[in-house]
Amino acid sequence: MTAQNFPATVFQSFEEKADPKNVAPRLAALRQAMSKAGVDGFLIPRADAHRGESVPSSEARLAYVTGFTGSAGLALVGPKKAALFVDSRYTLQAPAQTDTRKVTVVQTDRGGLNDTAKTIVPKGSKLAYDPWLHTPGEVREMTTLLAGHATLIAGPNLVDTIWADRPGTPVSPIEFLGHNRAGMTAPDKIAEIQAALAADGADATVLTLPESICWLFNMRGRDVPNTPFVLGFAIVPKKGQPTLYLDPAKITGELRRALDGVARIASSRTLPAAMARLGKGAKTVLIDPASAPEAIATTLKDAGATLIEKRDPVLLPKSKKNEAELAGMREAHKLDGVALAKFLSWFDDEAPKGELTEIGIVTALEAFRREEESCVDASFDTISGAGPNGAIVHYRVTTKTDRGLAPGEIMLVDSGAQYLSGTTDITRTLSTSRPSDEERDRFTRVLKGMIAISMARFPKGTNGAQIDILARQFLWQDGITYNHGTGHGVGAYLGVHEGPVGISSRYTTPFEVGNVLSNEPGYYKTGAYGIRIENLIVVKESEAFPGYLEFETLTLAPIDKRLIRKSLLSEAERDWLDAYHRRVWKEIGPLVKGKVKDWLKDATGEL
Amino acid sequence: MTAQNFPATVFQSFEEKADPKNVAPRLAALRQAMSKAGVDGFLIPRADAHRGESVPSSEARLAYVTGFTGSAGLALVGPKKAALFVDSRYTLQAPAQTDTRKVTVVQTDRGGLNDTAKTIVPKGSKLAYDPWLHTPGEVREMTTLLAGHATLIAGPNLVDTIWADRPGTPVSPIEFLGHNRAGMTAPDKIAEIQAALAADGADATVLTLPESICWLFNMRGRDVPNTPFVLGFAIVPKKGQPTLYLDPAKITGELRRALDGVARIASSRTLPAAMARLGKGAKTVLIDPASAPEAIATTLKDAGATLIEKRDPVLLPKSKKNEAELAGMREAHKLDGVALAKFLSWFDDEAPKGELTEIGIVTALEAFRREEESCVDASFDTISGAGPNGAIVHYRVTTKTDRGLAPGEIMLVDSGAQYLSGTTDITRTLSTSRPSDEERDRFTRVLKGMIAISMARFPKGTNGAQIDILARQFLWQDGITYNHGTGHGVGAYLGVHEGPVGISSRYTTPFEVGNVLSNEPGYYKTGAYGIRIENLIVVKESEAFPGYLEFETLTLAPIDKRLIRKSLLSEAERDWLDAYHRRVWKEIGPLVKGKVKDWLKDATGEL
Repeated sequence: MTAQNFPATVFQSFEEKADPKNVAPRLAALRQAMSKAGVDGFLIPRADAHRGESVPSSEARLAYVTGFTGSAGLALVGPKKAALFVDSRYTLQAPAQTDTRKVTVVQTDRGGLNDTAKTIVPKGSKLAYDPWLHTPGEVREMTTLLAGHATLIAGPNLVDTIWADRPGTPVSPIEFLGHNRAGMTAPDKIAEIQAALAADGADATVLTLPESICWLFNMRGRDVPNTPFVLGFAIVPKKGQPTLYLDPAKITGELRRALDGVARIASSRTLPAAMARLGKGAKTVLIDPASAPEAIATTLKDAGATLIEKRDPVLLPKSKKNEAELAGMREAHKLDGVALAKFLSWFDDEAPKGELTEIGIVTALEAFRREEESCVDASFDTISGAGPNGAIVHYRVTTKTDRGLAPGEIMLVDSGAQYLSGTTDITRTLSTSRPSDEERDRFTRVLKGMIAISMARFPKGTNGAQIDILARQFLWQDGITYNHGTGHGVGAYLGVHEGPVGISSRYTTPFEVGNVLSNEPGYYKTGAYGIRIENLIVVKESEAFPGYLEFETLTLAPIDKRLIRKSLLSEAERDWLDAYHRRVWKEIGPLVKGKVKDWLKDATGEL
Repeated sequence: MTAQNFPATVFQSFEEKADPKNVAPRLAALRQAMSKAGVDGFLIPRADAHRGESVPSSEARLAYVTGFTGSAGLALVGPKKAALFVDSRYTLQAPAQTDTRKVTVVQTDRGGLNDTAKTIVPKGSKLAYDPWLHTPGEVREMTTLLAGHATLIAGPNLVDTIWADRPGTPVSPIEFLGHNRAGMTAPDKIAEIQAALAADGADATVLTLPESICWLFNMRGRDVPNTPFVLGFAIVPKKGQPTLYLDPAKITGELRRALDGVARIASSRTLPAAMARLGKGAKTVLIDPASAPEAIATTLKDAGATLIEKRDPVLLPKSKKNEAELAGMREAHKLDGVALAKFLSWFDDEAPKGELTEIGIVTALEAFRREEESCVDASFDTISGAGPNGAIVHYRVTTKTDRGLAPGEIMLVDSGAQYLSGTTDITRTLSTSRPSDEERDRFTRVLKGMIAISMARFPKGTNGAQIDILARQFLWQDGITYNHGTGHGVGAYLGVHEGPVGISSRYTTPFEVGNVLSNEPGYYKTGAYGIRIENLIVVKESEAFPGYLEFETLTLAPIDKRLIRKSLLSEAERDWLDAYHRRVWKEIGPLVKGKVKDWLKDATGEL
């Protein structure tokens, strides 16, 4: 296998992490703890208190008990039975990872409870949950569903009491972004948030999302994989300095110095007491119902605070990247473009030999990216789908599923990196030899949709729900579509998925200048192949048309011309593609040499 | 003026109906009535209890008191001052019609009250309103706005007490649609609604919309202009016969015979007692919060009923036209196509002479339509906008505003008719001599949008908010747009505007087979010209692509090729236009002769 020439991956593992053998003894231990606590059931969500896509290993309770390692799910353990509720992405993975003799896997709409829950706990049950791991809305929904059958009771986390070898809370070095990277000082950002709080009539807000805290204080860490998060909480008052609540092990003299005059620093153990003080002062506190744990709402309310439920006030300003952040994102995409050029040229050499595998492809791509030392992580586990595996939208290759790529098959590679300058996310679909007419037709329709978004121009106030159809229209004309959004927000050296803007029917927040989004239509033929083409784009003012917005493309990597049926493209679409390729050549060409440069010259030539 | 050869219009009047001189004495009389009733203010909405676009003259209270004849608005009369709240459509018309020394015209977002109301009635006021003319939601909104300033009190309508020469309740002949026209018997329709009520857990519903009642009982009348309504109410129980509540003058032996075995008939005066009986039986009653008057909600609740607030259950089934209704609509569009061919050919002869006027154009068009005896009404007042008047989106020509059409100017004509077979609504924008490059560019972009909607194909579940951008994208590319929806639902020999589907960001109800919609993008250059192109379309299954929907065009009239810049059209768009014109020629050609036929042959020739 060719990949043996590359160093082993460090950003991604290909293990099946779970072992179904552990499920039975851990369930037994948990049931003992339940009985000691006087409850008949316990709820184990995948989320931690910060609700990020990745959780540190110390918070991976769902995986610890059930073996299931997906990014969303909820287990309900009853006195004799247990169920694992997952969404449609995980209906194959969940049964493969857990012990299905002990745990019933149930597919539900958004991975929450459904009526099956009533068969897991008997009528009249007391059902315990950890109020730091559920929002008030989630608790309300479960209470309604189980009304007349079981009562929900907030309490300590019983999984933690049985988890002997539980890893410690993550403590990673904290890095502060200079003004050249952040573009705005923390005090200026804090002043903006404080003005928003005043406008909302709030005396303070409790921030629970690491993305908000990292952005607000211009800091980054490595507490979780893929996203440069420092896990913690913050209370931002309407006036005066915010307080940052961190695990005591993270609180160093250096950190105190870095935030001197900007924020107070306190142990996260003192957060409940601080919230109680807000309550006793009868303050009005803004919390985000989509992410704030119930424990926060309860502590504040019980102490006498008035709550305003509103979106975390950091999310919108954070989504509008400033010029320094955009310069960083452009730099990151140049670095990523170089790695992609090396990778794609290598792929074209190797694929015809018929020896590539999905894991080998991930390993090579990571190695090319790591040649750039400011590449510090993958922004998510690479989706490396050969042939029919490309049609599994959320496929993650493991040693068990790894598949060879036969010449003639289509290869889908969706990957991204965290550079110190910014975050990338790119999908390319690659030909390995003569594609079929059908494959070229499908690829070209997906490309036309991707170009339609790239060329879109729209008045201020337009949102992603409105423009989504531009990406789908050419597939719809042939009676086909894709069952995922067209685009998500992307952070600047932060989360590869962020709100509040995106491109799909559920995104009704208007676009604003500086929003960075993915643009990734696709087409998937089950059992055959998958196609997705993804660039990152940024919203900018139209120079020619005041009051109108348009997109600038950030991603710089060739699109496989061998998969295009030229006659299906309009003149405007051909012009767009040729101009895009000229730009890739102009920006990446000078940064590569030898065989890669020759390959890039050819790959970016006129259609 | 050429129009002198045509008979005078009967469907539309060009008078300024209002006389500002009446405002002062009527306000004085109303204030006397207020003082007698012990209240400090009275609210006069434009709506009647049935909330149709047209109200009978007996319900035109707002026009009676203020002189304002627009289709939406609300007056608040205080002890000394009065205000008329209107939306942006009426900021010119309202001050022109009322006595502005006595009534302050206030523009608000949706024509409801705003803070100005607090300057009209003093603090501590009692403000009376007629609960048959406002929904509970409207009353709630006004109560919130005036909280701490004035109290709202439901009571008898004080305008009626001062209106000496008030016209009687309209009584027009009632016509029943045969099965060939309705396509479904009233009992079958009633059974469908009853199944929906049962599914919602309701024991009954009170219908207040004439469009619902007319559809349900397959009847039509002429109680209001433009729409073949019989005004009335109905109570539909979950089981058994509904009761229709009508003005006693409408209840004839013939009517009783026609509805024998289908519905009971009662005087509308007995409706409150019937609702009280529902309440005493502790029934659960469904009412539509968007249209049911507060009096209905209050009467039911006070008597003990439980209310379910949900969309009128007739609206969705009514919007899905069956094959008989669609056959009627196609027939109506053939008849309208003949009238349009005669009109457009006449227009092309006359316009170069420079003697046409806006009123003359309306008169001619109505005369051509009335040559077909099954044409019983206009479906709305024709918008006849010459040159700059075309840029006034809701323009209605009067003898005062009538404008000559100079050769070289663009003419916008938006009109529709009620045929016994169905309802039409069509806009054509016409050239009078060589149009400018800009006019052709704008017309072509509007046309491209209209064609994009016509050619759209989309999966079931798609709604009008999603496809709206297809109509706007080509204008947006040039930094321009239009400030109205792209399309509205249209009834089958019923209202020319109906819900619940439409094409604009506010329509999120998915399209269903049989929905009839308008497709009418536009562009308006203030002070210069207006462009709109409108066809009616119907949603149908895609034959080629199961699970997908597409549109069939109903309207059959040439689109002015002289205004098209051919090079801006794609090959697919040119093909669509040529095929459309071939179809117009094939369907309308055999029905016209002589000069009109020659004109049509030419007008429908290849681009």
